[in-house]
Amino acid sequence: MLLSHNIPFRYIFRKIRVDVLRVLLFSISFHILKLVLTDALPPVPSGLASVLGTGISLLLAFNLNQSYERWWEARIIWGAIVNDSRALMLELKAFIASADAQKPHIQAVVRSIGLRQIAWCYSLGQSLRKQNPLEHLEEFIPAQELAHLQDKMNKPLALLELHMQDVNWLYQEQALNQMQQTQVSGTVTRLVDSMGKAERINTTVFPATYSMFIHFFIYLFLVILSFTLVEAIGVYEIPVLTAVASTFFLVEKTARHIQDPFMNKPTDTPVTAIARTIEINIKQMLGEPNVPEPAQPDGYFLM
Amino acid sequence: MLLSHNIPFRYIFRKIRVDVLRVLLFSISFHILKLVLTDALPPVPSGLASVLGTGISLLLAFNLNQSYERWWEARIIWGAIVNDSRALMLELKAFIASADAQKPHIQAVVRSIGLRQIAWCYSLGQSLRKQNPLEHLEEFIPAQELAHLQDKMNKPLALLELHMQDVNWLYQEQALNQMQQTQVSGTVTRLVDSMGKAERINTTVFPATYSMFIHFFIYLFLVILSFTLVEAIGVYEIPVLTAVASTFFLVEKTARHIQDPFMNKPTDTPVTAIARTIEINIKQMLGEPNVPEPAQPDGYFLM
Amino acid sequence: MLLSHNIPFRYIFRKIRVDVLRVLLFSISFHILKLVLTDALPPVPSGLASVLGTGISLLLAFNLNQSYERWWEARIIWGAIVNDSRALMLELKAFIASADAQKPHIQAVVRSIGLRQIAWCYSLGQSLRKQNPLEHLEEFIPAQELAHLQDKMNKPLALLELHMQDVNWLYQEQALNQMQQTQVSGTVTRLVDSMGKAERINTTVFPATYSMFIHFFIYLFLVILSFTLVEAIGVYEIPVLTAVASTFFLVEKTARHIQDPFMNKPTDTPVTAIARTIEINIKQMLGEPNVPEPAQPDGYFLM
Amino acid sequence: MLLSHNIPFRYIFRKIRVDVLRVLLFSISFHILKLVLTDALPPVPSGLASVLGTGISLLLAFNLNQSYERWWEARIIWGAIVNDSRALMLELKAFIASADAQKPHIQAVVRSIGLRQIAWCYSLGQSLRKQNPLEHLEEFIPAQELAHLQDKMNKPLALLELHMQDVNWLYQEQALNQMQQTQVSGTVTRLVDSMGKAERINTTVFPATYSMFIHFFIYLFLVILSFTLVEAIGVYEIPVLTAVASTFFLVEKTARHIQDPFMNKPTDTPVTAIARTIEINIKQMLGEPNVPEPAQPDGYFLM
Amino acid sequence: MLLSHNIPFRYIFRKIRVDVLRVLLFSISFHILKLVLTDALPPVPSGLASVLGTGISLLLAFNLNQSYERWWEARIIWGAIVNDSRALMLELKAFIASADAQKPHIQAVVRSIGLRQIAWCYSLGQSLRKQNPLEHLEEFIPAQELAHLQDKMNKPLALLELHMQDVNWLYQEQALNQMQQTQVSGTVTRLVDSMGKAERINTTVFPATYSMFIHFFIYLFLVILSFTLVEAIGVYEIPVLTAVASTFFLVEKTARHIQDPFMNKPTDTPVTAIARTIEINIKQMLGEPNVPEPAQPDGYFLM
Repeated sequence: MLLSHNIPFRYIFRKIRVDVLRVLLFSISFHILKLVLTDALPPVPSGLASVLGTGISLLLAFNLNQSYERWWEARIIWGAIVNDSRALMLELKAFIASADAQKPHIQAVVRSIGLRQIAWCYSLGQSLRKQNPLEHLEEFIPAQELAHLQDKMNKPLALLELHMQDVNWLYQEQALNQMQQTQVSGTVTRLVDSMGKAERINTTVFPATYSMFIHFFIYLFLVILSFTLVEAIGVYEIPVLTAVASTFFLVEKTARHIQDPFMNKPTDTPVTAIARTIEINIKQMLGEPNVPEPAQPDGYFLM
Repeated sequence: MLLSHNIPFRYIFRKIRVDVLRVLLFSISFHILKLVLTDALPPVPSGLASVLGTGISLLLAFNLNQSYERWWEARIIWGAIVNDSRALMLELKAFIASADAQKPHIQAVVRSIGLRQIAWCYSLGQSLRKQNPLEHLEEFIPAQELAHLQDKMNKPLALLELHMQDVNWLYQEQALNQMQQTQVSGTVTRLVDSMGKAERINTTVFPATYSMFIHFFIYLFLVILSFTLVEAIGVYEIPVLTAVASTFFLVEKTARHIQDPFMNKPTDTPVTAIARTIEINIKQMLGEPNVPEPAQPDGYFLM
Repeated sequence: MLLSHNIPFRYIFRKIRVDVLRVLLFSISFHILKLVLTDALPPVPSGLASVLGTGISLLLAFNLNQSYERWWEARIIWGAIVNDSRALMLELKAFIASADAQKPHIQAVVRSIGLRQIAWCYSLGQSLRKQNPLEHLEEFIPAQELAHLQDKMNKPLALLELHMQDVNWLYQEQALNQMQQTQVSGTVTRLVDSMGKAERINTTVFPATYSMFIHFFIYLFLVILSFTLVEAIGVYEIPVLTAVASTFFLVEKTARHIQDPFMNKPTDTPVTAIARTIEINIKQMLGEPNVPEPAQPDGYFLM
Repeated sequence: MLLSHNIPFRYIFRKIRVDVLRVLLFSISFHILKLVLTDALPPVPSGLASVLGTGISLLLAFNLNQSYERWWEARIIWGAIVNDSRALMLELKAFIASADAQKPHIQAVVRSIGLRQIAWCYSLGQSLRKQNPLEHLEEFIPAQELAHLQDKMNKPLALLELHMQDVNWLYQEQALNQMQQTQVSGTVTRLVDSMGKAERINTTVFPATYSMFIHFFIYLFLVILSFTLVEAIGVYEIPVLTAVASTFFLVEKTARHIQDPFMNKPTDTPVTAIARTIEINIKQMLGEPNVPEPAQPDGYFLM
Repeated sequence: MLLSHNIPFRYIFRKIRVDVLRVLLFSISFHILKLVLTDALPPVPSGLASVLGTGISLLLAFNLNQSYERWWEARIIWGAIVNDSRALMLELKAFIASADAQKPHIQAVVRSIGLRQIAWCYSLGQSLRKQNPLEHLEEFIPAQELAHLQDKMNKPLALLELHMQDVNWLYQEQALNQMQQTQVSGTVTRLVDSMGKAERINTTVFPATYSMFIHFFIYLFLVILSFTLVEAIGVYEIPVLTAVASTFFLVEKTARHIQDPFMNKPTDTPVTAIARTIEINIKQMLGEPNVPEPAQPDGYFLM
């Protein structure tokens, strides 16, 4: 997640460097062409550039809106993960509070569910970002569980499978009653849902032809605009067209970046920082000693 | 689902070939007409083309947005199918874990629900795409169940009926308690919902007059624009108009393609690949030996 | 629901006949006026028509979008009715499967709930379309139930009341346990919701002043455009203005038609066809002999 | 709720009278100014009016859309109140049907919940409209309940409190079992939700600066347009500008009216008519004798 | 929350002072430049300003819409907090009404949950606004609970932990049955959700590059417009450009203010006033003596 300040100009410019350079080049070519064959170039009516400009503005605005909604949905999903992680611990702690508070083997299972929940958050974030989903998990789950995960295709799903088994074991031990088991396993099911939703955003390519014709449409607009401007303002065309092109490409690139929020880029949903928040909340609920600090931004962004 | 790279130019062009050719033809006709009767043609004010251009851009942008939402809803529905398939297995495995883990006839029913769930996913995808909904199902369900499905109008619904009966049988055998039966049959009901939602998108024709007047509006705009351009830039009109027409028809065709996401086309929701993911997840949960590989893209798209 | 092909030109034209004729008339009048008093008419700047054209395009596009969403919501509601009708039967059949499968009086009640559910779907569709809500119901419900419905203001609601009583009776007879009764009566409650939602769309007039000023705005735009065009292109104005006017009125009429989807018109949500689908599904689940064919389109539309 | 016909011209005009008059005045002033100092006024380029016109059209269209969504949400909330009122009675009637049908004190409590539910609907509608929330309630609830409500700040909430107590009493008397109590009190909780949602819309002022700059923006556009037109078409400016101004102010006022749907105005959500529908439904379910007629429109609107 | 009247002009102007001044400065510079080097400046075609104006209008309108939706979502979340606070008390009061009404230690726990719920609302509001989350809480919760909160990172979450423990204690004491405990703890879970949702809005920075290029785009548009106007209307450019610039910056600033609704600014969601409403409702339900008055607006806004 980009922060609202300190974003280096370099970062923004790098995203549109190639496209703006290309626009600069053809704008210069048109200018030279104009000098060479003065009369042959037709006076493209400015109305055409205007129509195309309106068209591409509309498509870009809608595209940006759809990308924004994907980005916001990704954040909502991770917000739900925060909520359900907290709810899971609140429910477990309250439900087994009274009768079984003293039984250490019950307490141990609750603690291990809590730590595994932290592990799940980190693991899901890493797996969405195509990083090793088992990295650093040894801090939170025992070695035999790590071994059990090795040959599973979907590690976070396997962790939730272990949750479900533990919840059922608590029910077998009568630490949870029927209704309480239903409620807690309902919370785990919501975690399955959130995981699947994040995977859906991650694996669904934004309609490819849509992205392609937007890119093509911007170029068409800039070429027509270039023809119009070279006629009207001569050499001043070059800075003007570069500024206009930069703006349109910046809109397009922003849309493209926020539409894939788990790509290990500065515009990502800050899944590591969110997992850290969950780690803090759960550890404080469990009364664990080594509560970490909240994640700090990495310059101008937070991962 | 189209991938973000490798889309052949041929694929994109084929979609708009006929319409662009038609535009090319009338643009050439206008040019010839202009040469023949020089003064008779009135100077259509460019403002009119501009108004129509804005109008059709707006309608296209909204239309594309509505199509995008249909496409995204279809993907959300199949995402929910992934989640509920996983939840179904997690619940069944956890709920009957302890007491009845050893009873083989209970285990057999859970396994057969799991395999039938895989069958249901493939069957639903094939039935939405108007393919044979029973193809390849013999791998997952026994022969007598296949026979039972033969004369049912809606095969996937009949498969869920069998799920419900098995879940109730587990309850009768006391492998599930009251609450657990309610929760598991609630999961099956959500699968009924997802199926119905996908069928709804598949059987609901996008408002036909809406699509028609958008097509008519684009032509009206191009004709008026052609009149304007032939006046202003002469023979250069032909490439310019072709480029503009291609862009608008490309937007329209993209909208039309993604608005029907189960038509067995490259822009489809990748239901077969999703069903494969579910097959992998469920088989790993059941400890089945023959876990397949994830589905691979077929050139530039994934089905 | 209009199908995507075979829509007769006559059907589309009839919707906008009066308005286009009116535009034709004043466009001709302006032309004559122009011939009579050559200099008195002021040269309305084309920019004004352009501004108004953008304004009315925007309002029409938003209006069409809101109408589309009403139409789509209506379809979603009937999709939910399909899902809950299926879920109701799946639940009932599974829950009473084992113990009471042999008791004929239990089976009879389940069958009568199934047939009444079919009756409810037809009755709701007919009542939304202001047709006789009891027509053809004698095929599905016994005479004394029909008599009981006679003096009820809201027939579909009274049918759901009978559902609820039967479900409770099944619970009293211990064919359903506490949890199962809750789940089945929850399904009936969702049907109450869907019914209320469809009634809401049906009884809520789209903001009337909104529709009125859109109509007025289109005329204002066409009058100003007519002034502009008569100046610029003379007699060619008449076909051009007629084409432009047709397009705008077509958009407006399409918005108006799809915004009321239960008016017994070709653009309706196909409630009869959906009820037929439900009839087929339920009858196959009940093993009834006389399963009908799916509803066939009536020329270019499906009711 | 305005009906779709019979809206008096007077009603529409009154809403925009002041603003149109103001526009008329400055348009006349500009015309006189133009006559006095012919050359001093600069020729404002029509492109500027065009840009501002596009800008304000966009903001108005979005604003109208947001207002429409508030209005539609208000209607959805009252639709949910209809559904939950019906569900409450269906559940109560079915759940206590068998065993306790003969016990008159149980029947009396169900009847008093039903009548209180009618009272709650009227009371909520009146309280949202800042009318006396206790008016006419004596028809539905006994005197001591009315007295109990007197010193409560939020009367509808206090009525739902009484509902909850009665539902719990039915459970204590074993007329409802555990699950049934949960389901019925869940329905009452949904009524609490709907009430809170309606209050939310009623107490949340639409962002005030947003409304203000839209008003300011329309004036800026009209002033610039007036400058442009006085140059081009002279005295004809006055009717043209008045027509354009009327249209834009009409859009603005429509947005403003539908964004507050509980203000006791003709554009309100028809809460009294909806409460009457609920009264009819509940009284027919209870078999009450004095079932009223549905509410009739009051000329061109329904309250 | 800004009220709809009494907003001082000073408040609105202060928001855009710097940007408008900057525009004023470069507009004057251009005018002087024009006087100095008359012919060197090219005649920028007004069409370009028009295209950029349409583009930035669209982006601003969409941006405003997205900000509006964040603002409205924040209000919906706090509306849900009102509803769930009321539901929590209604449920507790009704469920323990009969049997345990006389037992004072049960009553004391219900009362302390009620007062803690009030404390939670104030605490959450203060914590979202980065104020001391424990301020004034001593009025509602006992000293030892306050002490317990001291070292918790997330105070409102710790308060809900205490709620859950009390609810479970009521179940242990058999003041609530299984189903009732589930329902009440479900209500507490919804409060956890609402809290997490508010935190999500509060900690998620609106895509920073999006905000940046909108700001840059407005400047680009104004510079190009300034070039166009200085050519056409000379010194009149200065007031015209200032008015146009003010409007665009006002839209931008409004979008920026409402997109962060918990910043302790006049445009905030009125969390303190909402917490006061909840305090009044809960205290009246508990029969507490010292019910406060509703919060009064602070001049032109309500916090």
